[in-house]
Amino acid sequence: MPAVTFDISMSLDGFIAGPNATLEQPLGEGGEQLHEWVVRLASWRERHGQEGGETGPESDMLEESTAKIGAYVMGRRMFSGGEGPWETDARPDGWWGDDPPFHAPVFVVTHHPREPVEKQGGTTYTFFTDGAEAAIEQARAAAGDKDTSIAGGASIVQQALNAGLVDEFQVSVAPILLGDGVRLFGESRPKIELTRVVDSPAVVHLKYRVVKD
Amino acid sequence: MPAVTFDISMSLDGFIAGPNATLEQPLGEGGEQLHEWVVRLASWRERHGQEGGETGPESDMLEESTAKIGAYVMGRRMFSGGEGPWETDARPDGWWGDDPPFHAPVFVVTHHPREPVEKQGGTTYTFFTDGAEAAIEQARAAAGDKDTSIAGGASIVQQALNAGLVDEFQVSVAPILLGDGVRLFGESRPKIELTRVVDSPAVVHLKYRVVKD
Repeated sequence: MPAVTFDISMSLDGFIAGPNATLEQPLGEGGEQLHEWVVRLASWRERHGQEGGETGPESDMLEESTAKIGAYVMGRRMFSGGEGPWETDARPDGWWGDDPPFHAPVFVVTHHPREPVEKQGGTTYTFFTDGAEAAIEQARAAAGDKDTSIAGGASIVQQALNAGLVDEFQVSVAPILLGDGVRLFGESRPKIELTRVVDSPAVVHLKYRVVKD
Repeated sequence: MPAVTFDISMSLDGFIAGPNATLEQPLGEGGEQLHEWVVRLASWRERHGQEGGETGPESDMLEESTAKIGAYVMGRRMFSGGEGPWETDARPDGWWGDDPPFHAPVFVVTHHPREPVEKQGGTTYTFFTDGAEAAIEQARAAAGDKDTSIAGGASIVQQALNAGLVDEFQVSVAPILLGDGVRLFGESRPKIELTRVVDSPAVVHLKYRVVKD
């Protein structure tokens, strides 16, 4: 069965971005540290057009989970860092240039309608104004027999958890305390089970299944 | 070198107690689930005067870390659930009866002075009105060549982190989301390194070292 998932780096104190995010520092103060573990992995570097990096179980795990994803859902803020009408957006085509690392349909949840954008390598951006739940349904249809990944941010993840749409997820707990910023979890409290732990000195990956009644 | 430590169960969303704590439900709504992993372990049960329980690496780990503790520090609220003058406290001698599981000096941080209380099995309660930092110093002296454990609550842990007094700590991440309650970490942001991961289906224990400049 294809699953609806998310796979997000979080500080030990629960943040997925530091405080005071800007277009220059989209992950906020200290937030870049959340992803130090991933940018060193060979599989991530290859997908982002970079050479080298560490191979091994962590890189393989990332490659395997990424290969299973057939569609992505993300919020407007994660897509471009902007808000409001697209004409005023400093990065209307997103952060990832002409050859984005997704290689799959990406559904962007926004209040501002817009025609789809096609990029190289199989990435298409579709802009969806009917809310996160409807976007996830659309993404599931597009993903076919593959998984649908909620890329973020926290608001989209929380809406998906609240709606009971998430089947499993992984939180990569980075060894940092940010003290302030954007929290991954809100008030949603699904029942969860720990299904896998993978660790390295740089991070511990905690995978959970959402228990549905 | 003896260390100042803490070892606390936390939900995946960062809480060490649920909301709406009462004397009947001191860990708040849902908070009991945070400790389900520990009450099943043989070493915890033995220390709390109960029989049976699971043996194995997790039980051994708990026994080893507990055996290294020479003194405890805790806040008044954790000690008794009460506040204000001791005459009005419903549990002035704490939650743990005449034979507490500490078997060591316990320093209780309170605003209300009181004579020490001696219990069975080597547990003494000393009431300390000069704040958390001074209580930790006192506990370190009492612990000698053993570790000093900050038992909780969150306020005492945060004061110790802010003052740079914590050397290492373990967070046992229970597979639950509480959505609201008492957060373990506040605004303190010491640099930390992941030093050990121990997991079972019921919990994952993340041990960190505080990096001091």
